[in-house]
Amino acid sequence: MANMKLTYFDFHGGRGEPVRLALTMGGVPFEDDRVAMADWPERKGGTPFGALPVLEVDGKPLSQSNSINRYVAKLTGLYPSDFWQAALCDEAMDAVEDLTNEIVPTMFMPDDEKKVRREELAEGQIPLYLKRLNQNLAAHGGRYFADDRLTIADLKVAMLIRQLRSGILDHISTDLPDRVAPELVEHFQRVMKDPAIAAYYAKRGVEV
Amino acid sequence: MANMKLTYFDFHGGRGEPVRLALTMGGVPFEDDRVAMADWPERKGGTPFGALPVLEVDGKPLSQSNSINRYVAKLTGLYPSDFWQAALCDEAMDAVEDLTNEIVPTMFMPDDEKKVRREELAEGQIPLYLKRLNQNLAAHGGRYFADDRLTIADLKVAMLIRQLRSGILDHISTDLPDRVAPELVEHFQRVMKDPAIAAYYAKRGVEV
Repeated sequence: MANMKLTYFDFHGGRGEPVRLALTMGGVPFEDDRVAMADWPERKGGTPFGALPVLEVDGKPLSQSNSINRYVAKLTGLYPSDFWQAALCDEAMDAVEDLTNEIVPTMFMPDDEKKVRREELAEGQIPLYLKRLNQNLAAHGGRYFADDRLTIADLKVAMLIRQLRSGILDHISTDLPDRVAPELVEHFQRVMKDPAIAAYYAKRGVEV
Repeated sequence: MANMKLTYFDFHGGRGEPVRLALTMGGVPFEDDRVAMADWPERKGGTPFGALPVLEVDGKPLSQSNSINRYVAKLTGLYPSDFWQAALCDEAMDAVEDLTNEIVPTMFMPDDEKKVRREELAEGQIPLYLKRLNQNLAAHGGRYFADDRLTIADLKVAMLIRQLRSGILDHISTDLPDRVAPELVEHFQRVMKDPAIAAYYAKRGVEV
């Protein structure tokens, strides 16, 4: 197996977390390079597109969250081989990325602007995406997003639901997912009960 | 082969064009459902995430540009089977999507706001991404983004370069790609010379 190093911010979530979980589930050892926010300005310029996560495979960098997710998922058996099922897996991951692209910029806004923008998202794009993801989940059997089993798409969606319910996003009510997409919350809980994932967080003292 | 219908806006470019080109290159017949802008408001609600393109495969919808690109590329032999080469292909597509996510909102801004935002992009994110894509191209052999042959990533990047050089984006100098990423311009010209692509545009009277 190649030498793997994942560089991402130092918290249990976000765009880098599905990679950590997938590598853990697959039993693939990797260097977990966690960047403190204070060190980010000096490290930003050295990344392929000024962003994290970055996965280095035998020293060769790969950027773009979902590109990394897909690569790692193939290595760890968490990606469908059937073309259509793979497309459904990709679709869910890209939809989460769409929403992440709306949420992340609010983290760097002044408080008043942040409040306006987050309330707008909480009324608009977030429930829209959650409802449509909920519909997709139902259409694909109700338990998982693709291939009738846990794939990388489930990890990606679960991290979004966890973020929205965590209380870390001021001005977005933490019961929004429960209200508009209850099956996504059940899905999140199903994913978190996966033995490898539960063990990963238990070991780190993280409540899920 | 399944029944394919691509729904996208009625112009030769953007997020739907790589799918049209890939299906054409692969000789896969498809219904080319082109939505006039005037009809979009009434059709928007019927799409999976309020956005185009959407590919219907035997009536089942698939959304998200790069998810559709990847699915169609697998069907038409334009996607690498090697995991690492596939990841490089994905990385380039996702990078173009990042930039597209910055450019598209400017199309709906009032003129003064549009000017400010586009000038900011022309000084910042656009040259950054073009330079990094240029570096990736060079790092992967200089001719194509992955697998040492034309893949779906090349179609996606080529559509971006064509858009930037076309003059359709006021306040962004059309010589920006030539100045900051000359090898991407040569790459664009290489892609456009592919016999199937050249024939596709010639048949439609489109200058490339």
